[in-house]
Amino acid sequence: MDINVMDEIKRIEKVLGELSNTQKILLATDGSVTRILDVLKGHVGIKTLVQESQIADLEIAEKLEINPGDTVNYRVVIIGTKEPLIHAISYIPVDRLNNNFKEDLIRADIPIGRILKKHNVESRREVESIAMEEPDQQLKDIFNTDSMMLTRTYNIIRNGEILIRIKETFPITSFTK
Amino acid sequence: MDINVMDEIKRIEKVLGELSNTQKILLATDGSVTRILDVLKGHVGIKTLVQESQIADLEIAEKLEINPGDTVNYRVVIIGTKEPLIHAISYIPVDRLNNNFKEDLIRADIPIGRILKKHNVESRREVESIAMEEPDQQLKDIFNTDSMMLTRTYNIIRNGEILIRIKETFPITSFTK
Repeated sequence: MDINVMDEIKRIEKVLGELSNTQKILLATDGSVTRILDVLKGHVGIKTLVQESQIADLEIAEKLEINPGDTVNYRVVIIGTKEPLIHAISYIPVDRLNNNFKEDLIRADIPIGRILKKHNVESRREVESIAMEEPDQQLKDIFNTDSMMLTRTYNIIRNGEILIRIKETFPITSFTK
Repeated sequence: MDINVMDEIKRIEKVLGELSNTQKILLATDGSVTRILDVLKGHVGIKTLVQESQIADLEIAEKLEINPGDTVNYRVVIIGTKEPLIHAISYIPVDRLNNNFKEDLIRADIPIGRILKKHNVESRREVESIAMEEPDQQLKDIFNTDSMMLTRTYNIIRNGEILIRIKETFPITSFTK
């Protein structure tokens, strides 16, 4: 079940002060984040940091509702090539992909929102958590800031199964208007 | 096929000047508009102006990919009860609804985005057009302004069929930050 995104955002605002409309929308939307970034920043590209097959351990198997030992496509990207906009980690149970989709995914240079669009995938998105987090060293380096990060984790669901699990992160100093 | 929303927005900006991030997102998103309004304005309600069964004429049948003579649920609402936020006209081919969904729809007081969520509907949205329009007298009265309107028309597609066709309109003086 979807969390109450309004409540979560209010909780964060109590600590960090008022968020901008754009920040709130990026945390709450059940639509494509790529598409939003496209209209705000011009057609965005991605830079892939990691793209590999992993064997699901107990924890990730539970999150994806698959069996431990199943293969998962693990991808870490930065959305935005001119400037880093959003850091995104995704987990995809490979057995739930058809061939064309798998091929596009392994090309690694296309944002997931654009892949879903291209293949006319019908789905729904469930936001699992919205939070603020201290950045680790890698995030500090990527965004060139020590600022607090806003982050959310959500599942893209198709045919009643989790097709993609995504964690997105951006600094509170981004999208301030 | 989806239009290029980036191009359409640039075309409008050439005439009307720069749009705000929120305006651009509301025109471009393929997610729920209700959900966005919820986080920007607090849980939004709707006021139903018209809710009726219509017999599809040739034009609307073509748009919905149904047969002329088929029954269509026609609904005109204002999203936002404290202040008018968005005017929305929707067309739904009734034969494509299951019973629970139909019931919620006929209750008429729930925004469509929230109904889709409640029923875990998997879908995709295709934006057909984004435009600026002079308001007619009704829109002037609703929003209490003579300003130019921003509007878009999109289809919500499920099982490869148009489930809902929606035209949304709001004045350029709204959502300016």
